[in-house]
Amino acid sequence: MDVADLGLPVDVPSTALFTDQYELTMLRAALASGTAERRSVFEVFTRRLPDGRRYGVVGGTGRVLDAVENFRFDTAVLTFLREREIVDEETLDWLAGYRFRGDIWGYPEGEVYFPGSPIMRVEGTFAECVLLETVILSILNHDSAIAAAASRMSAAAGDRPLIEMGARRTHELAAVAASRAAYVGGFATTSDLAAGFRYGIPTVGTSAHAFTLLHDSERDAFRAQVDTLGRGTTLLVDTYDVAEAVRTAVEVAGTELGAVRIDSGDLLLVAHRVRQQLDELGARDTKIVVTSDLDEYAIASLAAAPVDAYGVGTQLVTGSGHPTSSMVYKLVARAESADPKAPLVPVAKKSSGGKTSVGGRKWAARRLDSYGVAEAEVLGTGPVPAALADRQLLVELVKGGEVVAREPLDAARERHTRARAGLPMSATQLSRGEPVLPTEYLHASSGS
Amino acid sequence: MDVADLGLPVDVPSTALFTDQYELTMLRAALASGTAERRSVFEVFTRRLPDGRRYGVVGGTGRVLDAVENFRFDTAVLTFLREREIVDEETLDWLAGYRFRGDIWGYPEGEVYFPGSPIMRVEGTFAECVLLETVILSILNHDSAIAAAASRMSAAAGDRPLIEMGARRTHELAAVAASRAAYVGGFATTSDLAAGFRYGIPTVGTSAHAFTLLHDSERDAFRAQVDTLGRGTTLLVDTYDVAEAVRTAVEVAGTELGAVRIDSGDLLLVAHRVRQQLDELGARDTKIVVTSDLDEYAIASLAAAPVDAYGVGTQLVTGSGHPTSSMVYKLVARAESADPKAPLVPVAKKSSGGKTSVGGRKWAARRLDSYGVAEAEVLGTGPVPAALADRQLLVELVKGGEVVAREPLDAARERHTRARAGLPMSATQLSRGEPVLPTEYLHASSGS
Repeated sequence: MDVADLGLPVDVPSTALFTDQYELTMLRAALASGTAERRSVFEVFTRRLPDGRRYGVVGGTGRVLDAVENFRFDTAVLTFLREREIVDEETLDWLAGYRFRGDIWGYPEGEVYFPGSPIMRVEGTFAECVLLETVILSILNHDSAIAAAASRMSAAAGDRPLIEMGARRTHELAAVAASRAAYVGGFATTSDLAAGFRYGIPTVGTSAHAFTLLHDSERDAFRAQVDTLGRGTTLLVDTYDVAEAVRTAVEVAGTELGAVRIDSGDLLLVAHRVRQQLDELGARDTKIVVTSDLDEYAIASLAAAPVDAYGVGTQLVTGSGHPTSSMVYKLVARAESADPKAPLVPVAKKSSGGKTSVGGRKWAARRLDSYGVAEAEVLGTGPVPAALADRQLLVELVKGGEVVAREPLDAARERHTRARAGLPMSATQLSRGEPVLPTEYLHASSGS
Repeated sequence: MDVADLGLPVDVPSTALFTDQYELTMLRAALASGTAERRSVFEVFTRRLPDGRRYGVVGGTGRVLDAVENFRFDTAVLTFLREREIVDEETLDWLAGYRFRGDIWGYPEGEVYFPGSPIMRVEGTFAECVLLETVILSILNHDSAIAAAASRMSAAAGDRPLIEMGARRTHELAAVAASRAAYVGGFATTSDLAAGFRYGIPTVGTSAHAFTLLHDSERDAFRAQVDTLGRGTTLLVDTYDVAEAVRTAVEVAGTELGAVRIDSGDLLLVAHRVRQQLDELGARDTKIVVTSDLDEYAIASLAAAPVDAYGVGTQLVTGSGHPTSSMVYKLVARAESADPKAPLVPVAKKSSGGKTSVGGRKWAARRLDSYGVAEAEVLGTGPVPAALADRQLLVELVKGGEVVAREPLDAARERHTRARAGLPMSATQLSRGEPVLPTEYLHASSGS
């Protein structure tokens, strides 16, 4: 059947084409030159955090596992590659049988990371690993950017729940992934039904200004909503005059009204006034939800305001100023020959220009101080020091091509809470600063 | 069949769930209150351009048409909505038969826009229109942000081709849409195979640093690439020492070498040196491609450098600092009753807080000065003045639920070139400034 029949927005039949063309031309040339089968190690890392950020958050690991499993070259894709003459017949034959059969290790989803952290390590033949570069980076770069913004917002919100409502501000499928990453970063719910459908994230939503404007009066609109959705619903009170709307809302719904939502104006001021008015009307349990262009700073500025929940849209799905994570996928070691037993040689780009990287297959561990608080991200290419053996960060995700580390999304969410709590307290300061942990390198030659 | 069987990255079976929950709860309440069938007009517009930008570019119109056609509630979706108790049985029945049967007008894709421009106008019953809010905004907000960045970059690049290579920096499907929007905005090619597959955009790509590092020497790598991809290929020359790599490249490929790529360092300086070296080696026709974190400013700064093509990644797919377009979808008019002949009443949010909008169903026209250059974006709710009748911007996209305005992507690309050329010359200044056209409102009551 034709995928288009399903009404999908983009009829790309597998994840295999979420790939930059050069990966296929490199494969073709490597197959021809006899280097394709050299055992290789690629690592995903970032050279820096976004300016001023104190930690990064790994988002998207679970989606990477799905993408690797579904990276298959079917007939439609092979036909496309043949017609465009992107690769030759020998390469097409190789691609037709492609399954990733190597190993992937990585920081588990929700874990925090720092400059240089080997967030993911992909090992296998050059041929099977080089093809995964773009799709792995797309997912980790996007989802980690959202997870990091979500984490800062959830730290700022404290115990108050955060609602993800940014679907309309980003690509319709990026929105679904953003909602997932926001949940990992500490958000409680989403307005995006596709995210609820696909990932089981709790969904919320009641009404917009259009609903009030549709009716002959605000009272009619409120009555229609309460009659249908019940007194526990959230009424939007800023279409006309807020004070009048709050009065009408309580008249219509009674003091059991669930919540009112404020979507414009000086939220600090309006929240105080609305709280006072609700209390005076006896609606002491009616909550206040605010939802107007919030970011982590605006959330923090409302800490002392009588606000019960925050809805966040634009700033969440755009990573609060940093919509991507500058992660790269680099060859760090490869075998001397195609012999599966040939030793690995560390490799790294050497030219000037600031894009150098550290060669060699790395381990990573987080060293704690005497109080149990993280004090350094330690990376190395030699043996792991005994004192760090049980503080290692990389876990096995894919073994011989089989995914071995699926987990519920809540596991990643809880992991993030723990990981952030283990950082020095300055991690959750919103002010711009340096990464809260230094990255230290222990090289094989240091013999430690 | 299960959509997951197809290996799709997100198994959302139609576009109907790219929807915020409140659209369904509003539908439910409106069906119950008898207002769902009121004829309604929603408009998409933005209150402001991103700070400093002089014009916006409409991107994604073609994708909106696909999304509206595929907005269907199938069994899996209805089951989800029932199990989550998001709507009641009456609403589920209504949704099961849902097809958008209204009309959509809009600025054609590639057209430029300004604050207030009614980029899209959706007309039908409240029920059928309210459901489309999120998916329409997701597409237009994302794709227009990318198209606008692409347009600035293509203006800065002049006749030199731009290569879109940002897939790895954004969500894997946002990348496909970004590639499409970049093409509309003036890019020539993309590295993203899925964009080539789905939209027929020309794809390019040869090799990365990993390919050089895989081989025992740079010479081996270059020879492997040239043997397979031919002398016309592009060799990446900044893995070790650029001058040595250029010498090796010409030794291996001869003076017919297609191009060299520089991906790091001071591009202005390096491009001059590499050009001189290539010329001295007799490779006068070998082109220079640069690809390191470029944005429109970096492209402009290389205008006098011997560069033949630019590859742009991160800054393109993140909208060069503005990854979304702040478009909103607002009810601007609705009927007094559910009677299909009832007159329309203009409506608009009134409360303070800066989020007000202009009520009424609008036309839009671009007024030209005596030299034929655009001088104002004129919007109105009454009759169109005769002088502007043939300068109207809105075209019919969907009529009675049928898409009537499909076009090849090249038509949008060419339209953008024409539309930008019709603006005052200051439009393509990169410096921050005001919108290059003022927005003027002619209200019905002004009688013009």
